[in-house]
Amino acid sequence: MKPGGALTVGLLGCGVVGTEVVRLLREQADDLAARIGVPLHLGGVAVRRLDKPRPGVDPDLLTTDAVGLVTRDDIDIVVEVIGGIEPARGLVLAAMKAGKAVISANKALLAEDGETLFGAAREYGADLYYEASVAGAIPLLRPLRESLVGDHVHKVLGIVNGTTNYILDQMDTHGAGFTEALEEAQTLGYAEADPTADVEGFDAAAKAAILAQLAFHSPVRAADVHREGITEVSAADMASAQAMGCVVKLLAICERVPAADGNGRNGRGVSVRVYPAMIPRSHPLASVREAYNAVFVEAESAGRLMFYGAGAGGAPTASAVLGDLVAVARNKVNGTRGPAETTYAALPVLPMGETITRYHVQLDVADRSGVLAQVAEEFSRHGVSIQAVRQEGHGDDAQLVIVTHRADDAALAATVAGLSGLDIVRNVASVMRVEGDD
Amino acid sequence: MKPGGALTVGLLGCGVVGTEVVRLLREQADDLAARIGVPLHLGGVAVRRLDKPRPGVDPDLLTTDAVGLVTRDDIDIVVEVIGGIEPARGLVLAAMKAGKAVISANKALLAEDGETLFGAAREYGADLYYEASVAGAIPLLRPLRESLVGDHVHKVLGIVNGTTNYILDQMDTHGAGFTEALEEAQTLGYAEADPTADVEGFDAAAKAAILAQLAFHSPVRAADVHREGITEVSAADMASAQAMGCVVKLLAICERVPAADGNGRNGRGVSVRVYPAMIPRSHPLASVREAYNAVFVEAESAGRLMFYGAGAGGAPTASAVLGDLVAVARNKVNGTRGPAETTYAALPVLPMGETITRYHVQLDVADRSGVLAQVAEEFSRHGVSIQAVRQEGHGDDAQLVIVTHRADDAALAATVAGLSGLDIVRNVASVMRVEGDD
Repeated sequence: MKPGGALTVGLLGCGVVGTEVVRLLREQADDLAARIGVPLHLGGVAVRRLDKPRPGVDPDLLTTDAVGLVTRDDIDIVVEVIGGIEPARGLVLAAMKAGKAVISANKALLAEDGETLFGAAREYGADLYYEASVAGAIPLLRPLRESLVGDHVHKVLGIVNGTTNYILDQMDTHGAGFTEALEEAQTLGYAEADPTADVEGFDAAAKAAILAQLAFHSPVRAADVHREGITEVSAADMASAQAMGCVVKLLAICERVPAADGNGRNGRGVSVRVYPAMIPRSHPLASVREAYNAVFVEAESAGRLMFYGAGAGGAPTASAVLGDLVAVARNKVNGTRGPAETTYAALPVLPMGETITRYHVQLDVADRSGVLAQVAEEFSRHGVSIQAVRQEGHGDDAQLVIVTHRADDAALAATVAGLSGLDIVRNVASVMRVEGDD
Repeated sequence: MKPGGALTVGLLGCGVVGTEVVRLLREQADDLAARIGVPLHLGGVAVRRLDKPRPGVDPDLLTTDAVGLVTRDDIDIVVEVIGGIEPARGLVLAAMKAGKAVISANKALLAEDGETLFGAAREYGADLYYEASVAGAIPLLRPLRESLVGDHVHKVLGIVNGTTNYILDQMDTHGAGFTEALEEAQTLGYAEADPTADVEGFDAAAKAAILAQLAFHSPVRAADVHREGITEVSAADMASAQAMGCVVKLLAICERVPAADGNGRNGRGVSVRVYPAMIPRSHPLASVREAYNAVFVEAESAGRLMFYGAGAGGAPTASAVLGDLVAVARNKVNGTRGPAETTYAALPVLPMGETITRYHVQLDVADRSGVLAQVAEEFSRHGVSIQAVRQEGHGDDAQLVIVTHRADDAALAATVAGLSGLDIVRNVASVMRVEGDD
């Protein structure tokens, strides 16, 4: 802290989010000082190139020496909005080692190596806040970390990627195909030229890992998350969902799996997965439109909660960074620190085969008597119980649509393999999970 | 703090919420200790009657001496779940004066006398947390107090009363009338035998006052809130709303009113009101069903956020109390305290006449030419601009439905008075505000 009592912030990165952080630090200076008790002062901004025009940023603050900035004596708080693993990880670790509080918006880093970062924060007694890393401006991590600490979270079910939600919403409301909806999203700036991270579910998987760590106090990395993207979702799938009173969403799901004997409050592990699934239109997540995000939390006492808002964008993300800045600055002023993350529960991440959910299976079948009996026998053989069956079309267009009760993924996979081998099944047209109705 | 390092809690009240708090303190003891750093110990429970059976509560902890409990040397934290103004206010003030941190679930008290309580908390350096006072388990006050502190809130729009939402939802989905829906809500336990506090909007007004204080850092009391209940909402109003693609909800609205010249970020005051209003079905609040609560927040940088969950009930409310308990206990362990509430912005609450919104007006009119011209002239004379007009029925059933652009409430009231005086208007059948579509 400076002699005058101000706290000094070092900013790593000055892209869309960083520029907004600089603007808010300037425009909200009086409010921030009132709420923290001392003024916040921007001490330096580390960038890769000094010659790029950065309107609103004092050129004298710019430096290419990021390591120098995070270890500078007068810096109290480091804000990391670079993204990616390196050099972000090295800088964040160096900052905490030098006694700085750190705020990060970096989902990739938190999901790749949260345990190392949490360990360093504990070792050096440093605050590490990262509200902006999941669901932009939506205050979500703080409620999980602080409001629900006296509760017991069973499940987190979220729409955490705006690009894919925009694409699926267009497919649902306008009957667009995936390629057409993706192109529109790219034209409007909702999707990148290379949309892989979004449409293949990598972005959502990183966020799912961060949410699972927090909700279950267990180590979960992005690589542990079962991941399926939305590129295979077809207009026919959307129509099937509509026929069932459902809508297709890309969901990030983090769930405790109970022990087989029902004993033990922690369950035998956690299931963390990202895939497109049908959810009933009456579910609160179903009405999350366009590029919005929302996360649904089920806790023992609190019941069902949902948090909704803009999941990305410079201003919303910067708003989340500012909220964290006030918290860590207040901690600095009080000579204390916020709650540390721990993975004390140490629940294992279970393989996808042990995940239990419901399924919607669509089969192209021969149009003759006895088909349903054979198909039903195949489900039964693998212990998968059928909730509803519907026949559609006839002759060469005959289809069976089967919705199952809850079953584990391994049994369903075995069922699908068995169905493919039946003479009377011409093609397994689609398999989609059904969530949010239990 | 005890020599062994535990923190001791004194509980005021042992009804539905208090009993749940006792249960959670026992069942979650290990988790709470892990997160706080020291165990929480229940030191005493103040009740009115000692002879009532209280399963799960150690009878040795019970006392009728509430004043003695809140000033006892070994008590660190006081949890107040009595409700009402007195004796709760005296006990909370005595506790803070004695250096105890206080957690209250008491919306009436916070809305009646927040400023006195905030002032006492500042004077005595005591924590005062009250997450459970608004919207039950939904983490809402903490995000407003802490996550959005670096942002600038424009508007809070909420469904904060579960009873009235249940009634309106039944009227909307089953075409029930108000009386019928109220009776059903009473049978199911969603409404009290004397439903006045809910259906006349008193409960929602208290919560609106608390939200406005927090969002705008200004003193707002329940008595300052413009309040209209739902007893006049008719099946015809619901049908009109449906015809417009809207649904009727009892809304608590807290809003900055900009200065006439558009200058000044704080605006010239705040409008705080509770009334039934139409909102578009596409609005996230429209899909809040049954007795659920949800609060929509518009902030400058964060954009649109929504918080959804169970607004009442023993377990959800106790979950919110436990979240506060962990926060204040951590503060005690660290020898610090949380952010104090202030009303530094001191914005005035504006009279209802200065509130600006849109209106849906339904008139029984004579079925002859020239009617629309006369009606339109009356709106125009008071500066209220018409967005849409629709004629329904004919002859003795002829009705005009008018939807206005944004206008102030005084101008609309003058318009309605003028319309009532016109020969061709037989009756002003209904006037309802339209929210959530700007």
